[in-house]
Amino acid sequence: MNEINIGMVGYKFMGKAHSNAYRALPMFFPESIKPNMKMICGRNEKAVAAAAQQLGWKEYSSDWKDLLSRDDIDLVDINAPSNAHKDIAVSAAEAGKHLYCEKPLALTLDDAREMLEAAEKAGVKHMVGFNYRFTPAIMLAKKLIDEGRLGDIHHFRAWFLQDWIVDPNFPLVWRLQQEIAGSGAHGDLNAHLIDLAHYLVGDISKVVGMSETFIKERPLPDESGGLSATSGHAAEKGPVTVDDATLFLARFANGALGSFEATRFATGHRSTNSFEINGSKGSVIFDFERMNELQVFFTDDKDDVQGFRRVMATDPPHAYSDAWWPAGHPIGYEHTFTHAFVEFLAALQEDRQPVPNFSDGVKCQQVLEAVELSVKERKWIDVSSL
Amino acid sequence: MNEINIGMVGYKFMGKAHSNAYRALPMFFPESIKPNMKMICGRNEKAVAAAAQQLGWKEYSSDWKDLLSRDDIDLVDINAPSNAHKDIAVSAAEAGKHLYCEKPLALTLDDAREMLEAAEKAGVKHMVGFNYRFTPAIMLAKKLIDEGRLGDIHHFRAWFLQDWIVDPNFPLVWRLQQEIAGSGAHGDLNAHLIDLAHYLVGDISKVVGMSETFIKERPLPDESGGLSATSGHAAEKGPVTVDDATLFLARFANGALGSFEATRFATGHRSTNSFEINGSKGSVIFDFERMNELQVFFTDDKDDVQGFRRVMATDPPHAYSDAWWPAGHPIGYEHTFTHAFVEFLAALQEDRQPVPNFSDGVKCQQVLEAVELSVKERKWIDVSSL
Amino acid sequence: MNEINIGMVGYKFMGKAHSNAYRALPMFFPESIKPNMKMICGRNEKAVAAAAQQLGWKEYSSDWKDLLSRDDIDLVDINAPSNAHKDIAVSAAEAGKHLYCEKPLALTLDDAREMLEAAEKAGVKHMVGFNYRFTPAIMLAKKLIDEGRLGDIHHFRAWFLQDWIVDPNFPLVWRLQQEIAGSGAHGDLNAHLIDLAHYLVGDISKVVGMSETFIKERPLPDESGGLSATSGHAAEKGPVTVDDATLFLARFANGALGSFEATRFATGHRSTNSFEINGSKGSVIFDFERMNELQVFFTDDKDDVQGFRRVMATDPPHAYSDAWWPAGHPIGYEHTFTHAFVEFLAALQEDRQPVPNFSDGVKCQQVLEAVELSVKERKWIDVSSL
Amino acid sequence: MNEINIGMVGYKFMGKAHSNAYRALPMFFPESIKPNMKMICGRNEKAVAAAAQQLGWKEYSSDWKDLLSRDDIDLVDINAPSNAHKDIAVSAAEAGKHLYCEKPLALTLDDAREMLEAAEKAGVKHMVGFNYRFTPAIMLAKKLIDEGRLGDIHHFRAWFLQDWIVDPNFPLVWRLQQEIAGSGAHGDLNAHLIDLAHYLVGDISKVVGMSETFIKERPLPDESGGLSATSGHAAEKGPVTVDDATLFLARFANGALGSFEATRFATGHRSTNSFEINGSKGSVIFDFERMNELQVFFTDDKDDVQGFRRVMATDPPHAYSDAWWPAGHPIGYEHTFTHAFVEFLAALQEDRQPVPNFSDGVKCQQVLEAVELSVKERKWIDVSSL
Repeated sequence: MNEINIGMVGYKFMGKAHSNAYRALPMFFPESIKPNMKMICGRNEKAVAAAAQQLGWKEYSSDWKDLLSRDDIDLVDINAPSNAHKDIAVSAAEAGKHLYCEKPLALTLDDAREMLEAAEKAGVKHMVGFNYRFTPAIMLAKKLIDEGRLGDIHHFRAWFLQDWIVDPNFPLVWRLQQEIAGSGAHGDLNAHLIDLAHYLVGDISKVVGMSETFIKERPLPDESGGLSATSGHAAEKGPVTVDDATLFLARFANGALGSFEATRFATGHRSTNSFEINGSKGSVIFDFERMNELQVFFTDDKDDVQGFRRVMATDPPHAYSDAWWPAGHPIGYEHTFTHAFVEFLAALQEDRQPVPNFSDGVKCQQVLEAVELSVKERKWIDVSSL
Repeated sequence: MNEINIGMVGYKFMGKAHSNAYRALPMFFPESIKPNMKMICGRNEKAVAAAAQQLGWKEYSSDWKDLLSRDDIDLVDINAPSNAHKDIAVSAAEAGKHLYCEKPLALTLDDAREMLEAAEKAGVKHMVGFNYRFTPAIMLAKKLIDEGRLGDIHHFRAWFLQDWIVDPNFPLVWRLQQEIAGSGAHGDLNAHLIDLAHYLVGDISKVVGMSETFIKERPLPDESGGLSATSGHAAEKGPVTVDDATLFLARFANGALGSFEATRFATGHRSTNSFEINGSKGSVIFDFERMNELQVFFTDDKDDVQGFRRVMATDPPHAYSDAWWPAGHPIGYEHTFTHAFVEFLAALQEDRQPVPNFSDGVKCQQVLEAVELSVKERKWIDVSSL
Repeated sequence: MNEINIGMVGYKFMGKAHSNAYRALPMFFPESIKPNMKMICGRNEKAVAAAAQQLGWKEYSSDWKDLLSRDDIDLVDINAPSNAHKDIAVSAAEAGKHLYCEKPLALTLDDAREMLEAAEKAGVKHMVGFNYRFTPAIMLAKKLIDEGRLGDIHHFRAWFLQDWIVDPNFPLVWRLQQEIAGSGAHGDLNAHLIDLAHYLVGDISKVVGMSETFIKERPLPDESGGLSATSGHAAEKGPVTVDDATLFLARFANGALGSFEATRFATGHRSTNSFEINGSKGSVIFDFERMNELQVFFTDDKDDVQGFRRVMATDPPHAYSDAWWPAGHPIGYEHTFTHAFVEFLAALQEDRQPVPNFSDGVKCQQVLEAVELSVKERKWIDVSSL
Repeated sequence: MNEINIGMVGYKFMGKAHSNAYRALPMFFPESIKPNMKMICGRNEKAVAAAAQQLGWKEYSSDWKDLLSRDDIDLVDINAPSNAHKDIAVSAAEAGKHLYCEKPLALTLDDAREMLEAAEKAGVKHMVGFNYRFTPAIMLAKKLIDEGRLGDIHHFRAWFLQDWIVDPNFPLVWRLQQEIAGSGAHGDLNAHLIDLAHYLVGDISKVVGMSETFIKERPLPDESGGLSATSGHAAEKGPVTVDDATLFLARFANGALGSFEATRFATGHRSTNSFEINGSKGSVIFDFERMNELQVFFTDDKDDVQGFRRVMATDPPHAYSDAWWPAGHPIGYEHTFTHAFVEFLAALQEDRQPVPNFSDGVKCQQVLEAVELSVKERKWIDVSSL
């Protein structure tokens, strides 16, 4: 297998990020299977045609179902709005296509489970878009933990802080509407933190959470799309139906304590996606705004020079570093996607499931819903009860 | 009033910190009333005699009750172990002495309330040792909030991270024994964070928490004292009866969301006492390891130069800065105490209660106990119910 | 004009960086002319054939002269080793091709001037590869200066610190040989700093410098290429004929004082490319390892909140930000090249010289040689005397 | 010897800093000889009387010569303006007093040498006020170098950046007048950097420098004193006769390269006193605004976790740490003086010369003058030629 044919559903922020990653692969990872950017789909024909042109897809269609009947489509990449994930994924699985699906896998745990079942039943490969796992500095954290260099983990604390809707006049875009987005900061941001917690520390057994929508009503948007929107000046307002912020405490199966916070009201933080892990032998601190760095501490350093080290994960010993630039030269956000696809294509070649896959998506969804239930019922929730 | 006579109970870590502050006052705050370091008390006569000599007290006694009958003692400074606070404070109040008491005010909320009542009944002035309020950078945060420059507060997140007992062979010092210390990281560290939350954001209405003692048994110490201890090599072990870490979520009366974490297991953090506050118009970030700095963000900065500013609170516009060194020259931990005493002495001179006083100590204790109850009963607790 | 045909000479580190930038253009800058990656040239036929395949060029040749006679080549991109720049550039100019040439423009000032003259005589457009100018955070610094927001500039200090040859067993690669590389840290690293100084502060009038080769002999390499090399284990050694480090002081025409340092012996610095500028009304600090950030200070900030701001240049008001990812999401080193080509293609479309062009390359070379002369003659050198 | 009687000349910024250090000694360093604060001298009788009261001196005099005849004065501490140092020091030495003299030792190298000779001839102990040597984090740097843990030193770069006179309306205080201050940023700030270079790296053999006075005339002050001054509104102006900024390059005797910069025009830097040292096995970075921290890098760290460590020098393994507060609790600027006096008093007790002493003061003065000569003659100067 030298090449794989891809059909993609979605063409906005994530569509661009994925397309870019596919284009980067042959240049930076020449050993990888070559992704063939066959067809892009989206409901708005004019827009998807323009996207095909700009992003480099050979064909386009305004109906994703067109992908199903095509023998020359091996893999379906789903980055349409979240409420469309399930139908596309289940149909594509039934049509025998491999699946890459953006997070959150679905709007509900039930839907996510249905998607996993469909993929398993069809025997296809499936991957979920937890791209942050593929940040070299985070992969270093994982390596240190796996090699026991941090010892037993006692604490995981994570926060994903943004500030794009602090202004009460920011309009009611689709990301603020539950029927499309499922949830707000919680599903958008905590989803990533929960997945990193699973990846780095392990299963979460119990949670208790708190949520808030600080601004209850916002101006209706003139037009909405992705993250940006013309600030609505219309007199008319509509209700915000998702959370502005969700925090929760967690107990991990291995006894570690967790603290999570996702908010779009952290003034001054454009996108601080950060965590810290404390173990009995060492600690790590990460902040995506400085994504090429990991701070690392070891208790067995000589006592007069103990301190957090600022490691640039751009050196030869670090994951994927030889594909990119010389040591000390930063890479950007987009290559978390490139690396994710390297993993997916390697899994296809080696005939194994990629990681993270739909089971990881389901597990994340389970914690997300446990937190939502905890917020609603104002009590601790056992994750396994869902 | 030019001078005030002080009797102090306690002579270890806090006794030294207080003595140093009293000695610094006349040199750095010559306008202040002069504290007269009259008598120091402690149970171990030999040790207290040595302390009197080293710390600069005129007399000493092995019985704090000696202070009560002395007409020439105006103020009793209590920094003995926490379980002794109540008896000393109540007796001293009854003897008409002004009171400075280290935090936590008492081991229980009931005791704390009894202390406040005694002080109020006696009509004396009373202050509680929440020294961090007197860090110039924190006072800047307070000023920005009070002047409305951060807008409405949405988030307060705080963590007090230490790592001095990560080693399971660290011995069972008194701070790890409930009957003396009351609680562990919670009472020692969260107490400070809660007080800062009260100071900066306001009342806390509801809490839900989680606690852990990672190491359940530790070697008995050869001798214990303050924070340090000879690592116990004895075969014999005893149970740790306080928390190693306590985290909680909080809802403030004004609608803000709070997140608190206190731990002695944050490997690599000698003493990270840090908080962040996000408001609708700006944010601040503080870390006591860089105590002279406050990071400040404003939404109304010109859009191309928005970012967190690193403000050194050592310049003339900052609190107490003209008492110390030129701009940019750091001051240390000890002067949080010096500033606290400046406030106390000013209050005496102006015949008003100093701030923070025993009511603040009670309020802090109330939240501490609400969290403990929440941990025990595994549910949200209304702070006002206690 | 919708498309431009490119021929490129060179296929290693820079060849890859340029190819990637050409490929990124249509996706991220769809308004730009489309670069058509026509032909890649290099002396080693097998290697250049593989590069053509990997980097996405339609044709390849082992003789760059093949580009000259082709009517369908509009622009020649030169990133071959520095000692080949002049011949290629002069010939290509004479053949009427537009020119993009990597820095340093040439090995000597005379050669650089010859190249500029050839390009001017031929009436072609020419650009020099000072890619760091196109870092959005640096463009912000430029904007602040141009708008007078930093006031009169008093100080420029810059350092480009690397550590890849600290080990005395690191082999004698081509970058350590004068006949190929021209100079060492000076031409490689100071060249960038000097260009940034020109861009941000203006002309340099006088310099005095100091140079050192700490390790005089190194093992001969098994094979050399780009920045990496198999560490030589051969008993045989050869002389290092370039500088390991060069520092110099400078006086700018506008009266500002400059300090420059380039070294490959700054242990711990993989690639710290950093500068600071102090003006009468403000200052900026930049470090390429955190390339998305600029620290900015203003004297007219309110006196209680003065401090360096950490500005993330990933927001809408910043250059090129709308081509990339949401605010707070880092971009990488490679896009300094993408942005440089956006400028070149815009200049072609607008029929003007791009900036920086060969005059900037000549000006940089002039300062480089003035410093070399100063080192040799151990005295201050007037830049205009060269 | 349990106690030593001190007479001090000077009572402003440095007088306060020294007095505070003397008062701190018995409490924090009880093993040290006790300094007896006997008599303080200054020309203005009213001011010195007030200072005696505030700073805690038993007696005062408006004539420092009164100290000479007093048998009960063992040590004379000189922190009067620099132009008075020589006369006091020589007279006091002749009277058999031990000497502590603030930096710069004198206004000229000749004077400094005369002072050293007088002290040596009299056989008294002598110390110079290079207080920064006694910063625990800097002492860690020294220890790492002495133990060979940084290997051979290749680079020392240092900058002392202030911004208190950027405003052209800041008045012409005494520090801007050559006849009193000797020089400007150079003698005030570079003096400290040069001494640290001597302490950490060794002798400087050659220098070349550059100086500037950006603002040539300033308003005459209403009254001047120490660092602060009422901004002059007078129409009358006077010439600034010292440098605003001085930079120089240096060659060390051991082959290392040095770069120094002192300026009072680095807008945004209240007092950034910073250096970096790169050796063959490691590096350190220091910034006095974060004086409790040293950043440390080692080449022999495991390759996947190499990075600068942020070491808090407040832990037990660090110098003087057990005298102060628990790990992670910052100390301030003032204790660089406390530690300096601990050294002086230890030297008296052990009957040896303290370090740094007047020879170090002379050596520093020699480099300062070599730089001044280099600036004047616009050429490299051999330090040993002076």
